[in-house]
Amino acid sequence: MTTFKFTLAYDGTDFVGWQRQARGRSVQALLEEALSRIEGAPVAIAGAGRTDAGVHALGQVASATLTHSIDGATLRRALNATLPSDLRVLAAEPAPAGFNARHAARSKRYRYHIVCDEIIGPFDRRVAWHLTRPLDLAAMRDAAGRLEGRHDFRAFQSSGSSIVSMVRTIICSRLTASPVSETGTQIIYDVTGDGFLRHMVRVMVGTLIEVGSGRRKANEIDEIIASRDRQTAGPTAPAHGLFLVQVAYGPDHEIADPLRGPA
Amino acid sequence: MTTFKFTLAYDGTDFVGWQRQARGRSVQALLEEALSRIEGAPVAIAGAGRTDAGVHALGQVASATLTHSIDGATLRRALNATLPSDLRVLAAEPAPAGFNARHAARSKRYRYHIVCDEIIGPFDRRVAWHLTRPLDLAAMRDAAGRLEGRHDFRAFQSSGSSIVSMVRTIICSRLTASPVSETGTQIIYDVTGDGFLRHMVRVMVGTLIEVGSGRRKANEIDEIIASRDRQTAGPTAPAHGLFLVQVAYGPDHEIADPLRGPA
Repeated sequence: MTTFKFTLAYDGTDFVGWQRQARGRSVQALLEEALSRIEGAPVAIAGAGRTDAGVHALGQVASATLTHSIDGATLRRALNATLPSDLRVLAAEPAPAGFNARHAARSKRYRYHIVCDEIIGPFDRRVAWHLTRPLDLAAMRDAAGRLEGRHDFRAFQSSGSSIVSMVRTIICSRLTASPVSETGTQIIYDVTGDGFLRHMVRVMVGTLIEVGSGRRKANEIDEIIASRDRQTAGPTAPAHGLFLVQVAYGPDHEIADPLRGPA
Repeated sequence: MTTFKFTLAYDGTDFVGWQRQARGRSVQALLEEALSRIEGAPVAIAGAGRTDAGVHALGQVASATLTHSIDGATLRRALNATLPSDLRVLAAEPAPAGFNARHAARSKRYRYHIVCDEIIGPFDRRVAWHLTRPLDLAAMRDAAGRLEGRHDFRAFQSSGSSIVSMVRTIICSRLTASPVSETGTQIIYDVTGDGFLRHMVRVMVGTLIEVGSGRRKANEIDEIIASRDRQTAGPTAPAHGLFLVQVAYGPDHEIADPLRGPA
């Protein structure tokens, strides 16, 4: 019996999300089917982040236990040989017995892409939110910084979740902007936290855009957090701008220091 | 009557190419249909480069004449409102009467993307050729430089073309490489010339890869050119790594100096 830790990248465009659904193409189902073919028996896989339909991953992490003896490099090649090209296993490594990618995760890093221009190019349309009005980046940076810290983030959670504690720590919440054309700007929002509620990053982004477009002031972020009321925050930004970039683990099941992930 | 010059970007993945075909989705047909709806009568469009099925464009140029009075910005917005998101009109500008984007082109710049790694990521798979073996970049750079100059490029042309003169001038032929992962390299080949024969860039790339993989020596490029025989050059590289980056015109119909295009 070997427990494996998998690092995964996928283009979320054509997936119904991480989680197996009654219908549709899920990342979990494709991986479980590929692993089950190798194992010759059903294999269950646990994913660190249950990304929604349309959300992408550059470094999703998942775990599964196989009874067959196989080394990580061979397993990675065998999986990539059968999986579709929009889902890749970047690494498959042995992990301590009982390692669960979901429960052991210490922090996750997400990134959200926005293109702010009259036109969005054909190569960005699947991976960035397209906005046409100019945004106040200074106000958005101020607002993004106010999301850092240990807070009850209930106001940024989609309704319908049954999670008991809604207190999470946002370690880093930062906005960068760069020109993409004579008139356009690409905005990248990076956020790292010890955990995220349902749709939390997308509601954060929707709220930051309200600040950037002048409908809210940056210091209203503090009031929105304090309200614990979903109605006070902004709309949920579209899924296709969001990437799960990295999942970090502690020293026992480790890859990266959650506070010092790669660029 | 106003002749317009259009600058276009498209993701070639889901097109049968620039040119209208009996079946399939062509860039030319979609543009002609969109222009004809605005004009209320059939409109013909001329494209500078007849990109093949799967080839992308960042700066294709096309021309068409409309009898209706419409300004460029309105025309661009009207076209983008009806065209699919994998085809965008980046600019629509009035041009001198009789301007033909194909005949007036002074030079074209193409770019070819290669990812050299065990795995190609899900966001590169549609826009780069995936090779798994390491390549000798120094030899490839030497070979790329030998393609510059005024030559009969018949050896690099797909058979079946009816063009009479096969002499073309390659102004710039250059290779750059950068790391994409711990093990992988992204190679970008940039080539600018006063014209290109059918499949010429892709045969050049296929030949450069033969040099990079040690099957040919860099100085064999000179012999291949001199042979004027398609059999002596390498295979045709896949279409999906190729981008038409820019088309340059002379001072009369002008945007850019062909020798000093944007980076």
